[in-house]
Amino acid sequence: MISVVVVGSGNVATHLIQAFSQVDTICLKQVYTRNLDDLETFKITIPVTNSLDLLEEADVTIIAVSDDAISEVSSQIQNSFVVHTSGNTGMQQLRNSTRKGVFYPLQSFSKEKPVDFHHIPFCLEVENSKDMAMLEILANALGGSIYHISSDQRKNIHVAAVFANNFTNHMYQMAKDICDTHQIPFDILQPLIEETADKVKRLSPKDAQTGPAIRKDEKTIKNHLNLLDSSQKELYKHLTESIQKHGKKL
Amino acid sequence: MISVVVVGSGNVATHLIQAFSQVDTICLKQVYTRNLDDLETFKITIPVTNSLDLLEEADVTIIAVSDDAISEVSSQIQNSFVVHTSGNTGMQQLRNSTRKGVFYPLQSFSKEKPVDFHHIPFCLEVENSKDMAMLEILANALGGSIYHISSDQRKNIHVAAVFANNFTNHMYQMAKDICDTHQIPFDILQPLIEETADKVKRLSPKDAQTGPAIRKDEKTIKNHLNLLDSSQKELYKHLTESIQKHGKKL
Repeated sequence: MISVVVVGSGNVATHLIQAFSQVDTICLKQVYTRNLDDLETFKITIPVTNSLDLLEEADVTIIAVSDDAISEVSSQIQNSFVVHTSGNTGMQQLRNSTRKGVFYPLQSFSKEKPVDFHHIPFCLEVENSKDMAMLEILANALGGSIYHISSDQRKNIHVAAVFANNFTNHMYQMAKDICDTHQIPFDILQPLIEETADKVKRLSPKDAQTGPAIRKDEKTIKNHLNLLDSSQKELYKHLTESIQKHGKKL
Repeated sequence: MISVVVVGSGNVATHLIQAFSQVDTICLKQVYTRNLDDLETFKITIPVTNSLDLLEEADVTIIAVSDDAISEVSSQIQNSFVVHTSGNTGMQQLRNSTRKGVFYPLQSFSKEKPVDFHHIPFCLEVENSKDMAMLEILANALGGSIYHISSDQRKNIHVAAVFANNFTNHMYQMAKDICDTHQIPFDILQPLIEETADKVKRLSPKDAQTGPAIRKDEKTIKNHLNLLDSSQKELYKHLTESIQKHGKKL
């Protein structure tokens, strides 16, 4: 049985702790948190410490702290194999002098919402190739999908995720603003939002692209611009131009 | 039993014809198409005509042709109650001299993909209030959700849908470009795309917004910009600015 120590009490740490504590094949030995209060809401019985000096050895020590703290925290850890969970941080930013790796679950986590790790992609990277099997067992135990991803690829995935998540959510925000202004319930758009997300499972986004921008339907574009306020208008123009330029590039 | 005639053979017409022909409680009396070949792939037995002069009377005549053709086609129809299916066209652009209405299914249709009308929002509008019940029966028969939406609201829904569908799909395209450049399989982002779409069922997009833009995490933003090509960079900057401005406005 693989033993694990989790360092951190933020979003990712919280969800990993909950998930590992529900899996029989993984032994969650200990959790480190700076502030013991952070873990008080947990209804599970795991040894907790607020001192890195008292950290127990484990097969895998998972640092799930903010990106900025990874180097500093890892420099204080002597455990044999230390991984971080960050999309945006190179493996070599770990400062432990022992073996290093990355265990990055690619998903958007919020504390208030339970996470089902089934099918969540785990981006795995190791310094020492024989450590890969151990990370694969951890990811498998949680039901995740396994991807071998280098630090360079992972940084780019993180940018791609900003488009697929943060910027996409902003599109939803713009749509909701328009609905609110005209007393239209936002839930009227939900089936369209789902279908749009679903479609790119089967079609490439290039083939799925529809609408006035790609059709160069200037009349509809003009009608739409007339309905928008100045900041909406500006964004609509940029996005229309970006779609049209992209069409040309391909 | 309500009788229906469908005018058109494009995406929306095709899906409506297929859906109505599977519903026992609606009588699909006839289909008009300019070119009879367009309907040859149908394995259903419905009377078809390519002459508007031979159009049969029905309780509801549904014009599902391109936006530009709605006025012209409707001006040639004498049937008692004529509706169009366009998001972007006012009810008064119908030129029949009889009763008018709108029967707009808010979804993104592609010919190659079957459409399940269950839960699809139908935006209904009528000139004559007693016609509403008939459109509601049609939408219900297809399993759709019913919304009473004015021409003015519908135009705005259409713009909102451009953000929620066309522009969102462009975000997926940008993400895929980044993946392709770095030999990352695009399907690694699919769970994130689904979760992002799913989250706004429960949280408002404002509360669901995460990422470096809303956090004003300039270090990460700078790292991201360094990874992008010039046109990706430009769009990333515009979207980051739009998210940050929006945060202020609220």
